[in-house]
Amino acid sequence: MSLPRLATYSVKGAARYGAVVDGGIVDLSVRHARDYPTLREVIAAGKLLSLADEAADRMPDHAIADITWLPPVPAPEKVICIGVNYPDRNAEYRDGQDAPNYPSMFMRSPRSFVGHETPLVRPRASAQLDYEGEIVLVIGKAGRHIPESAALDHVAAITLCNEGSVRDWLRHAKFNVTQGKNFDSSGSLGPWLVPYTQESQLADVRLTTRVNGELRQDDRTSRLMFPFRYLINYISTFATLVPGDIIVTGTPTGAGARFDPPRYLKPGDVVDVEAEGIGLLRNGVVDEA
Amino acid sequence: MSLPRLATYSVKGAARYGAVVDGGIVDLSVRHARDYPTLREVIAAGKLLSLADEAADRMPDHAIADITWLPPVPAPEKVICIGVNYPDRNAEYRDGQDAPNYPSMFMRSPRSFVGHETPLVRPRASAQLDYEGEIVLVIGKAGRHIPESAALDHVAAITLCNEGSVRDWLRHAKFNVTQGKNFDSSGSLGPWLVPYTQESQLADVRLTTRVNGELRQDDRTSRLMFPFRYLINYISTFATLVPGDIIVTGTPTGAGARFDPPRYLKPGDVVDVEAEGIGLLRNGVVDEA
Repeated sequence: MSLPRLATYSVKGAARYGAVVDGGIVDLSVRHARDYPTLREVIAAGKLLSLADEAADRMPDHAIADITWLPPVPAPEKVICIGVNYPDRNAEYRDGQDAPNYPSMFMRSPRSFVGHETPLVRPRASAQLDYEGEIVLVIGKAGRHIPESAALDHVAAITLCNEGSVRDWLRHAKFNVTQGKNFDSSGSLGPWLVPYTQESQLADVRLTTRVNGELRQDDRTSRLMFPFRYLINYISTFATLVPGDIIVTGTPTGAGARFDPPRYLKPGDVVDVEAEGIGLLRNGVVDEA
Repeated sequence: MSLPRLATYSVKGAARYGAVVDGGIVDLSVRHARDYPTLREVIAAGKLLSLADEAADRMPDHAIADITWLPPVPAPEKVICIGVNYPDRNAEYRDGQDAPNYPSMFMRSPRSFVGHETPLVRPRASAQLDYEGEIVLVIGKAGRHIPESAALDHVAAITLCNEGSVRDWLRHAKFNVTQGKNFDSSGSLGPWLVPYTQESQLADVRLTTRVNGELRQDDRTSRLMFPFRYLINYISTFATLVPGDIIVTGTPTGAGARFDPPRYLKPGDVVDVEAEGIGLLRNGVVDEA
């Protein structure tokens, strides 16, 4: 059987969810929407794998060409993003400070993300739209004060993020990057959820970002400053994690702002974020209408 | 007719919404839940005032003593908080910097708030729980790139926030206050929504915070550095505001951290946030279990 993959998508404007199989998508929402209106409820019920299994023997209901990919978890309660989490990123800031004791974090609105194959929007307000490829943990089991030893038991699935940022708006305020991280449709999530079953899916994954085919970011999760188990433990010290919560775990060195001169995204560019065993998240770029 | 006030609350564990009238609460959810499952849908339909009017002539269904107040908007898409917005707050930071050009912003999870009369939780992780009294705008009409001249047309209601913060965790990271602003049940929203109908409800409102009856914060909205119209215009430059979105507009000088020595909240304290024409939001304090 191929890698189980579950997606949220729309057909003719109606949101659905299903399993990605050879030749297309098996529509699971048509069979399960009464029990699980969205993938968020599938996650909460611990049914990602069993629904993927059920779909594995079916013929696809939709061709890939007929769907619009959406972010895989609709309306997550929390989207928590980690600011600096690969070793050379801290040095990139060139502020002379030592490695931080704790991770930097901010939140994004679901509306700041599009799905796979939908273009990112460069806003009217800025020409500094930038890419950041990241690996995403999707929480499956609620918890507070989760010890590192049990942390991965709370992960339901893995996906990818282009944590697109508007650089000049990140520094509008003394503290807090909120504005530059929350432009409508400035980032992406997807293409799908890969159910999490074993630590080898996360332990040493190669993560790359390419712009128009040119490799810009390339690192491995084994080098994270704040590893996945740490992040779940740390966040759950202050907040209850709940099913569907999204943790965007940080980006490697090599975002466009780090070049001299900076290489920001422009209409027509294509950004690929790819990770072994997860997939490839692709987005074009358009100007805000 | 008294001030129209709409509340979200629970009775015997079931969430409901209704209008606050003399002698209690008129249950509106029992009559309208099919069309509007929560106050968020009432807001989106522009029906706050008409439902309050409908309730004005009815006998209450519940005594106040029989309900548990909940944050008035369940599951808002966004809770955007403004960091420094009353004149003397910038000076309080004593960092020698001029007044900022743009507001500082961060987001809070709905889970970080309790309702009126439910105690704030001082977490295991810190003894530095602090109060911040604030006035809250609740968005009623969606919009992007909203001009200041039309900004208040997008406000459906006003309420109050105790934007409770865990001071040492605000500075865990170089940037971003996310952690210290998102402890479970560390802040409060309420007690109710007052439908917005005219600018005099917002233009020069006195906002006070008392701890155990002692006045700690006292300022007026006419002194805001970034006025309400500006905030709506500015936020809508990057994000589409949607019905139910919450904008927590900043706190006056006088939070506990600003005293020498600091005066943090402790179990048994009672914090009142009060504003003319809006109401009084009261919360006790307990230690995390």
